[in-house]
Amino acid sequence: MKPFSARALIEKTRDKHRLNKEEVQYLVNAYVEGTLNDYHLSAWLMAVYLNGLSREETVWLTHAMRDSGVKVPREAAASFWIDKHSTGGVGDKTSLILVPLVVTVCEKWLGPGAVRIPMVSGRGLGYTGGTLDKLESVPGFSSNLTMEAATRALEQNHFFMMGQTAQLVPADRKLYALRDCTATIESIPLIVASILSKKLAENLDGLVIDLKWGSGAFMHKQEDGRRLGEMLVGVARDSDVDAVAILSRMDEPLGYTAGHALEVQECYEYICDKRRERGLDNVTLALAGWMVSLCSRRKLSVGAATEACKEVLGSSKLEEQFLRMFTAQGGDWEAFQRRRESAQKSLQHLEYRAAKAGFLSRLDAGEMGRLLWEIGAGRDQVDAQIDLDVGLEFHKKVGDAVQAGEKIVSVYHRGADVAQVEVRLGSAIDVGEAAVSGPAWLSEVIDE
Amino acid sequence: MKPFSARALIEKTRDKHRLNKEEVQYLVNAYVEGTLNDYHLSAWLMAVYLNGLSREETVWLTHAMRDSGVKVPREAAASFWIDKHSTGGVGDKTSLILVPLVVTVCEKWLGPGAVRIPMVSGRGLGYTGGTLDKLESVPGFSSNLTMEAATRALEQNHFFMMGQTAQLVPADRKLYALRDCTATIESIPLIVASILSKKLAENLDGLVIDLKWGSGAFMHKQEDGRRLGEMLVGVARDSDVDAVAILSRMDEPLGYTAGHALEVQECYEYICDKRRERGLDNVTLALAGWMVSLCSRRKLSVGAATEACKEVLGSSKLEEQFLRMFTAQGGDWEAFQRRRESAQKSLQHLEYRAAKAGFLSRLDAGEMGRLLWEIGAGRDQVDAQIDLDVGLEFHKKVGDAVQAGEKIVSVYHRGADVAQVEVRLGSAIDVGEAAVSGPAWLSEVIDE
Repeated sequence: MKPFSARALIEKTRDKHRLNKEEVQYLVNAYVEGTLNDYHLSAWLMAVYLNGLSREETVWLTHAMRDSGVKVPREAAASFWIDKHSTGGVGDKTSLILVPLVVTVCEKWLGPGAVRIPMVSGRGLGYTGGTLDKLESVPGFSSNLTMEAATRALEQNHFFMMGQTAQLVPADRKLYALRDCTATIESIPLIVASILSKKLAENLDGLVIDLKWGSGAFMHKQEDGRRLGEMLVGVARDSDVDAVAILSRMDEPLGYTAGHALEVQECYEYICDKRRERGLDNVTLALAGWMVSLCSRRKLSVGAATEACKEVLGSSKLEEQFLRMFTAQGGDWEAFQRRRESAQKSLQHLEYRAAKAGFLSRLDAGEMGRLLWEIGAGRDQVDAQIDLDVGLEFHKKVGDAVQAGEKIVSVYHRGADVAQVEVRLGSAIDVGEAAVSGPAWLSEVIDE
Repeated sequence: MKPFSARALIEKTRDKHRLNKEEVQYLVNAYVEGTLNDYHLSAWLMAVYLNGLSREETVWLTHAMRDSGVKVPREAAASFWIDKHSTGGVGDKTSLILVPLVVTVCEKWLGPGAVRIPMVSGRGLGYTGGTLDKLESVPGFSSNLTMEAATRALEQNHFFMMGQTAQLVPADRKLYALRDCTATIESIPLIVASILSKKLAENLDGLVIDLKWGSGAFMHKQEDGRRLGEMLVGVARDSDVDAVAILSRMDEPLGYTAGHALEVQECYEYICDKRRERGLDNVTLALAGWMVSLCSRRKLSVGAATEACKEVLGSSKLEEQFLRMFTAQGGDWEAFQRRRESAQKSLQHLEYRAAKAGFLSRLDAGEMGRLLWEIGAGRDQVDAQIDLDVGLEFHKKVGDAVQAGEKIVSVYHRGADVAQVEVRLGSAIDVGEAAVSGPAWLSEVIDE
């Protein structure tokens, strides 16, 4: 590797001059190898935070990070490899529906083996839930796949759902830990490189990005979501991945439940077309429609693809595919049902009811996320243990009419401070006299 | 020490919010103690570089750094403690004249024991010379004083000249090394804190700051000098030190010589009133006048103080005081004279002569500094060995008339590449036909 002066590279970003490709590669590679120290990178990261990076520099950074580890081996078959990324929200369970739904629809409309979903997911941190944690509420399920097992799963089931490994994008692991200590997390080019380096290591052809904004998301403003989305889509496309970003609201929780096992159960009911909450329905079908359309190499319109997705809801084929998501990786669905029954008995219930009749005008996602965390479902450190059974059930969503004394939220907990929970709920829920419409879940699509 | 979150403190400076005094103290103390890591500070330093610090924050930073080590013990006597700081230039030898001159004049006009000059100096780095290196060209001179020996010297001689020690301002040593690696040197608040933390550890009452700008200084523009000067004077005054800053030009070297032993000899000749180059004379007398005026607690005007300084030039009292500067710390002036004679024999001479008659219009300080470095008088690393005998003699200064074939510069070297030296000199020296005036050495005084 050509040696560069670390100071000279830091100076360039500090002075808003552009780095070239070799210089960006050097920063990443020399850091991973230990030639550059934490203090070099931390000064550079702060310069990036304050001065930004160009789209080209962000592409090079993303690729250098992607290339720091192994990639998911790409088979020869002409399948379309696709994944979804979400910036995270409260009650966001769409991945568990999208994987079986997209596989089922693509197999049906585009032919057997048309799609591969090599999904590398994370765990929950802060008050947004993690897909892996949800999957693991099904007893026996393991997200610890070797790359060989993952490749085999992809061939047999056309998807896998695994966690980060030390071999996948080690540069991101090292840089993220440093950013976390040095207040350089919230930088668009650094967020883009972190997200996409991991997605590009999946060897994708297509990517649908769910950008959430609102009280329960890390972005509170639509403009922030748009800026991030434009950079994500641009860098993904510069990396030969057909990408779109969908901005969706996260002001109230998604779906009827929040909490790991509760959400898995809700997904099952959604798949079986037994209970589909409007927000979850809107967001999931939009993402699924886009995923299927991309998989068809945009031959199927998003509208037609969405209709095709709606059609299979409630089918035994889709239910089978949903259950396979767990069983393919060791999960025991009957044990999950037993777990749910046992939890229903052992958990304490707290019902939050409407004081007066009216319309639910606010069910704050941020507050619900914090409550979830307080009752044990969230972690503040990556290695913290969490309770997969506790959670919240939303009997009413914003816009719904409520009668005085009617249940709005049930809290399933293990001996939480009831008074404190009620204060939290009181500050998060508003019931007004005037009829209000529910939120417009979908804000915009970035497809250019 | 109250624990703060490093990330939260970095965030504040990153977002241009103000830190309070305890937070600034925590950053410095926790870093010196090792509670905070290099990577925390390097992110913070880059945030300071790009966003600046307020004057208040700079005062707190300076004081926290000053308080990280020992200070020069202050005796009870009512003397005025004063020092001078220069940002450095080529041929800048004023300290060696100022110490004996100011002591002599103050003793004469303000009474015995009226002044103390506790001078902690640095070594040369890059192409600006260091006072300690110059002093050490006098055989036997030692700048390695214990604090006890320094205190004794101050009582007996009313001055000392020592180098940095590990006990004096360790925070500056550690931070400077980190700034050097992370491209965060050239930041006004950080420069101010670095300079003043060391000067404040001398327990001063007054400080005269010589800010050089031009081709041979680190600041190339007068505005930069002014901005730095205003902050230095402001922070010093907020620390109860009566300070002024004088901006002076550094476009041609100061004095007739550049090179360690050569400059000591020039200082001796200046003191004895045998040979006073106009630039050196202007700058030295301005600094001396201000120092004496401050020592009189501004009772003596700068004009009157300057006249008093001029008066003692050539006096035996001043010559004695000059020689005492060396002998008080082990220096042997006769050995120095023998060293000079022996060097004159052993060094090679290269004479650069005027190709045509005219007026010297340029004698570039930056180029002369680089030439000095190339012939062995400069160091690029703090522990590099340098040659104290080699150097340059300027027979003409800008504005002087020259005849064709007349000597402009002599280079005293040990086997340098003569062709290369001549190319360097050719690019640094211009002789024009039109009469030109010499530079106005003094640009402005910052005293508010």
